[in-house]
Amino acid sequence: MKTLFIAVLFFCNFFFSEANPKISERDKTEITTLLNKQVEAWNEGDIEKFMETYWHSDRLVFVGSHGPTYGWQATLDNYKKGYPDKKTMGSLTFKIFDISKIDKKSVFVIGRFELTREAGELNGHFTLVIQKIKGQWLIISDHSSAED
Amino acid sequence: MKTLFIAVLFFCNFFFSEANPKISERDKTEITTLLNKQVEAWNEGDIEKFMETYWHSDRLVFVGSHGPTYGWQATLDNYKKGYPDKKTMGSLTFKIFDISKIDKKSVFVIGRFELTREAGELNGHFTLVIQKIKGQWLIISDHSSAED
Repeated sequence: MKTLFIAVLFFCNFFFSEANPKISERDKTEITTLLNKQVEAWNEGDIEKFMETYWHSDRLVFVGSHGPTYGWQATLDNYKKGYPDKKTMGSLTFKIFDISKIDKKSVFVIGRFELTREAGELNGHFTLVIQKIKGQWLIISDHSSAED
Repeated sequence: MKTLFIAVLFFCNFFFSEANPKISERDKTEITTLLNKQVEAWNEGDIEKFMETYWHSDRLVFVGSHGPTYGWQATLDNYKKGYPDKKTMGSLTFKIFDISKIDKKSVFVIGRFELTREAGELNGHFTLVIQKIKGQWLIISDHSSAED
């Protein structure tokens, strides 16, 4: 009986130790809250609040159409340059396709962004790596690209 | 003395438990080998060998200009459709900017791809999430985007 129990444990470990195990409801809620905060802050024209969702580190990386930008400050500067006021920021919506667990403190998130502006729509997709750092979920890597 | 030791331990834990701790030389070599295999396979016109670097799972995700594709088979099908022969595949080079540790079995990699083809150059950037699954480093998420 004990042998069977161990065999079942081994079986479970073998088949469920793959990448992307299920994310807990609590983590999912916290990460969704973070993503909602991004959208809310953007639509309030509040870039500083928007940037609170990113890891405040020189190792933060944002990959856009011109390649990677390293560091929280440089990422903020880029956003401010590209979107100097509420009018250029326009109205943002996200569609989250999935939140996939990497490990107990890290996920990646795939989503779609739709930006409605007077200057024309800008739609595309993002892959975020989000990590729980000192008790707080923060974006450590953001790759955003416009669609064709 | 014991208190001091514990204080030092606490200090170390506090400052070094952040995201992106240093990656080991061994892991770096193994991941670089994986990336080199991608380039080699591509330049041999061998899409199947190229696809060996991706997680063979329905949960693999590839984000391109049209958004996410889920699953190893669908990703292979997309590549075959977009690059039906060696001529359309052209010549690929990578420039790896950094390999950042997420946890002991996961990293993200930022890089630049340059594709030289008769149909014209195609350059851009990628963010890969690479995870060690059953002893093997595999790409579990690939976001690739062409530059403006």
